[in-house]
Amino acid sequence: MRFEGIFAALTTPFAPDGSVALDKFRENLARYNRTHLRGYVVVGSTGESVLLSFDEIDRIWNTARESAAPGKLLIAGAGVDSTSETIARSRSAAELGYDAVLIKTPHYFKALLTPVALERHYMTVADASPLPVLIYSIPQYTGISITADWVARLAEHPNIVGIKESSGNLQLISEIIHLCPPKFSTLVGSAGTLFLSLLLGGAGGVLALACFLPEAAVEIYEAVRAGDTARASRLQFTILYASRKIAGELGPTGVKYAMDCVGYYGGDPRPPLCPLTEAQRKTVEAVLAESIARQKLDDLGVAR
Amino acid sequence: MRFEGIFAALTTPFAPDGSVALDKFRENLARYNRTHLRGYVVVGSTGESVLLSFDEIDRIWNTARESAAPGKLLIAGAGVDSTSETIARSRSAAELGYDAVLIKTPHYFKALLTPVALERHYMTVADASPLPVLIYSIPQYTGISITADWVARLAEHPNIVGIKESSGNLQLISEIIHLCPPKFSTLVGSAGTLFLSLLLGGAGGVLALACFLPEAAVEIYEAVRAGDTARASRLQFTILYASRKIAGELGPTGVKYAMDCVGYYGGDPRPPLCPLTEAQRKTVEAVLAESIARQKLDDLGVAR
Amino acid sequence: MRFEGIFAALTTPFAPDGSVALDKFRENLARYNRTHLRGYVVVGSTGESVLLSFDEIDRIWNTARESAAPGKLLIAGAGVDSTSETIARSRSAAELGYDAVLIKTPHYFKALLTPVALERHYMTVADASPLPVLIYSIPQYTGISITADWVARLAEHPNIVGIKESSGNLQLISEIIHLCPPKFSTLVGSAGTLFLSLLLGGAGGVLALACFLPEAAVEIYEAVRAGDTARASRLQFTILYASRKIAGELGPTGVKYAMDCVGYYGGDPRPPLCPLTEAQRKTVEAVLAESIARQKLDDLGVAR
Amino acid sequence: MRFEGIFAALTTPFAPDGSVALDKFRENLARYNRTHLRGYVVVGSTGESVLLSFDEIDRIWNTARESAAPGKLLIAGAGVDSTSETIARSRSAAELGYDAVLIKTPHYFKALLTPVALERHYMTVADASPLPVLIYSIPQYTGISITADWVARLAEHPNIVGIKESSGNLQLISEIIHLCPPKFSTLVGSAGTLFLSLLLGGAGGVLALACFLPEAAVEIYEAVRAGDTARASRLQFTILYASRKIAGELGPTGVKYAMDCVGYYGGDPRPPLCPLTEAQRKTVEAVLAESIARQKLDDLGVAR
Repeated sequence: MRFEGIFAALTTPFAPDGSVALDKFRENLARYNRTHLRGYVVVGSTGESVLLSFDEIDRIWNTARESAAPGKLLIAGAGVDSTSETIARSRSAAELGYDAVLIKTPHYFKALLTPVALERHYMTVADASPLPVLIYSIPQYTGISITADWVARLAEHPNIVGIKESSGNLQLISEIIHLCPPKFSTLVGSAGTLFLSLLLGGAGGVLALACFLPEAAVEIYEAVRAGDTARASRLQFTILYASRKIAGELGPTGVKYAMDCVGYYGGDPRPPLCPLTEAQRKTVEAVLAESIARQKLDDLGVAR
Repeated sequence: MRFEGIFAALTTPFAPDGSVALDKFRENLARYNRTHLRGYVVVGSTGESVLLSFDEIDRIWNTARESAAPGKLLIAGAGVDSTSETIARSRSAAELGYDAVLIKTPHYFKALLTPVALERHYMTVADASPLPVLIYSIPQYTGISITADWVARLAEHPNIVGIKESSGNLQLISEIIHLCPPKFSTLVGSAGTLFLSLLLGGAGGVLALACFLPEAAVEIYEAVRAGDTARASRLQFTILYASRKIAGELGPTGVKYAMDCVGYYGGDPRPPLCPLTEAQRKTVEAVLAESIARQKLDDLGVAR
Repeated sequence: MRFEGIFAALTTPFAPDGSVALDKFRENLARYNRTHLRGYVVVGSTGESVLLSFDEIDRIWNTARESAAPGKLLIAGAGVDSTSETIARSRSAAELGYDAVLIKTPHYFKALLTPVALERHYMTVADASPLPVLIYSIPQYTGISITADWVARLAEHPNIVGIKESSGNLQLISEIIHLCPPKFSTLVGSAGTLFLSLLLGGAGGVLALACFLPEAAVEIYEAVRAGDTARASRLQFTILYASRKIAGELGPTGVKYAMDCVGYYGGDPRPPLCPLTEAQRKTVEAVLAESIARQKLDDLGVAR
Repeated sequence: MRFEGIFAALTTPFAPDGSVALDKFRENLARYNRTHLRGYVVVGSTGESVLLSFDEIDRIWNTARESAAPGKLLIAGAGVDSTSETIARSRSAAELGYDAVLIKTPHYFKALLTPVALERHYMTVADASPLPVLIYSIPQYTGISITADWVARLAEHPNIVGIKESSGNLQLISEIIHLCPPKFSTLVGSAGTLFLSLLLGGAGGVLALACFLPEAAVEIYEAVRAGDTARASRLQFTILYASRKIAGELGPTGVKYAMDCVGYYGGDPRPPLCPLTEAQRKTVEAVLAESIARQKLDDLGVAR
């Protein structure tokens, strides 16, 4: 099975007392279930994984499992710095019935995490994980860069089935698609690169933007699949600033506020992340409004 | 109380099966107890903190508490990305009788961790921590840089008593010393800057190098305190390459092998960290031998 | 007139005594004239512009003017750090009958060269230049980055007609194409991005690779224009490593040696640039041979 | 002869019509002649060298030669990217009776300018230059970093007599001083590092700050030479922000405005450099006023 389509990189809702608000999480999922999203990444970067305890993560994973509609694929954000802990997390996800694990590049000891060390990490995890492994590269948070040659070597492992590539580097994405076998799923992690990656043979996206504009992301995917690249290209530019200014520059905090704006439960992030300032909220509102307006104009057939 | 002198940033020994080797840890401490080290940082970066579970950390903290000689100060590496978890870790360290906590800058969500967000984190932790707080800045691992003005603002909090500054940027260190009150302890985290920081009024160092060359670091400290800056300067240059090539470039892996070379238990790091290659081991051996030879020549009064 | 097609970023041949070898330059041009290259950039980065005196540049420009076949477009690399000197160079190019000037971002005083300062530079040059202006951005040499919004503002000036964008950042290139008017020519400066940029509506490329593989670059361009994107994509990957390993990593020195390998006159660069080492020469030979072999296989209809 | 003391990195005054204002340059020099500055660097980075023609540079060099008081040392900024042109510039400076040339690292072709290539450049220039050579490293403008080992190799050449090191990296400066012979002059190029570098055995500074606060820089130098390190340290901190906010962040433009503020002729820089904004001018005025006030308080014996 290839992982294809648009996946939302879910946020983790918090109650005003700072605890995980599983009820709000269920409500969000109930609404996402009615979209054409292909599935969900549960507790990835956008889910503030590094701010959660393993107990909390298990409860969130479990809730997503219970709440996801049949047919929606579930991918667990299971990568931590330690190889053995990453394996343990992957086994937990398997026990809960997940479909795959998303394994972030270890990153704390930057200079020591050479391509060889990273390859050993992934090979060890892939050997031991009961679930298929998706590589996860996000250099803007980790400081770890990868190359297409390196991905192609990992893609030879039968249990490494794809990558979420969040750097936004289309040249790199095009080389990964070129060098890896067709069954390997190259999913982009930045909405700004969705259309072009699909045009190049990419499998879809795992997108924070899909938390607040799920239909827009799905429509780009479906337009490309339907061969309507002109429409896909137009739609892509309707989400460019929403992707850059909200998901890119403001991270989970911005995504959550944008969710609040469109009727999902976003809420505040966990400290040390700070709520948006008033000026940042205005930016999110304006960017979001413009994005939605452009999409409507496009639906009405009005040229930009 | 000001934190002054040389502290070893302890490594965490692992047994061949990957578990924490508390017996080896005790043996190392027994030997360090006989040096003039002022104390120990337990489970910092050099202790591979990000590769340990909280259970393991508690056992290591506890073992250090039992094994440290009376009078040695104990500093717990207690900082994680989450503010509330950092507070919980600090309380655990307090219950175990530690003297201070070392709180690393949160770092995963790079762009969102503005000076304001980081200040809120430290103020919240310092308000809640039963133990005095030492700031810990290590941009080569975290990607988070700080300024002297920012440190000076934090230094106004009565429970923020010092900093371990590991960037190696002496200009920054000199400004921190200048802008912060005399009771604030500016400890360097890179052995290469020890002598100059002391000359500028620094309080000492928290050094990975002190795991394998504790006496050399202590001698530099004592020479400066005794007013013998010429000798301190000469000794500083005997450890320059050991600091850069072993602790700097090879991190915990290099430090552990250097410990093996001089009779401590180093052992292998935890994956994803890889054991040194043969060439890297030769480098460590050569750099270490040269460093020790130079120190002996200096003791004998032989000019370089 | 829109600048479209493949332009070679010509090298400057030097004689063994270090002087400019205009005779060799003429011979190279005579051969390029027989290709479908659309034209030439004379004395750009690949032409070692910063190592030439203005007198030498004038003689090279003049020689290119005399030697270029009718119909080949001539673009003069005329940008230097000083605004007034850039204008003077542009006027010289106009007197020699050139078709456009390529104006590099000023770059020495990095932090002072804000978007506003750079915009003032280009507006002043565009006002005064008798020739149409092409912006030239090459952050790997200049350290100056630009944004698509900034390019779009400059594109409103009637005498700023295009850009040579050499960063290799396809996301940036796609946004420039989207935001600028259709008559604006977005030319890529890195051969690795040629196919995709054309697919997105780009106008072509100004390529160092076209010095030693002119036909390969032209074929990609013509395949896209003919609607044969499958063939263009295959051809693109035949030049990927030649672009990266020769033009990208080895700069003018590598390009010149590759020219020597395929029968043009390359020769040595000017000091401080060093001739290739033996190992670097072997790399160029191997990468070039593989690239040519892949192109032949594709011509023969052999799948990779 | 060792180059010791404080040298001003002179600005180049321009008339309102953009031409070089040699009369203003003479007036500035007449005033500097009455300070204890050891000499002048003529047409370095602060002199906007990259915005001047060689004709203009020759006239400026000549004017400085005529206007400098007897005993003031004259150092010509003679380094350009081309090795042969750098030699030609050095010979011109020799003919004008200069005392040394300051040779900037070539920098345009970043990745190709390896330590080996740079070493070849300096060795060739030092062999051919009639004047002693000072290396000039300023990575914030050039993007080229150096190491102390590399400097020590060059210091073995009898005609390479010192370095102007402008990175502000005190660790690097301390290693250069340690590894190079005593007769080698290590001059800092950032005023913020002056005191510490002198304490370490440095020879002085080549400072843009000395254009507008020459006496302050000289006093730090003389205090260290007189053994009054406490006073030198206090004075150092009176110029910290003037160095960082004016010379560092605002470059020649800021330095010129600060000169205007204290009675020298500064004037505007050449485009593409822009005059300061109103807000930037206020910053310069405030920083300068605070710096001067602190110096007066120190003279009066008032503790901060």
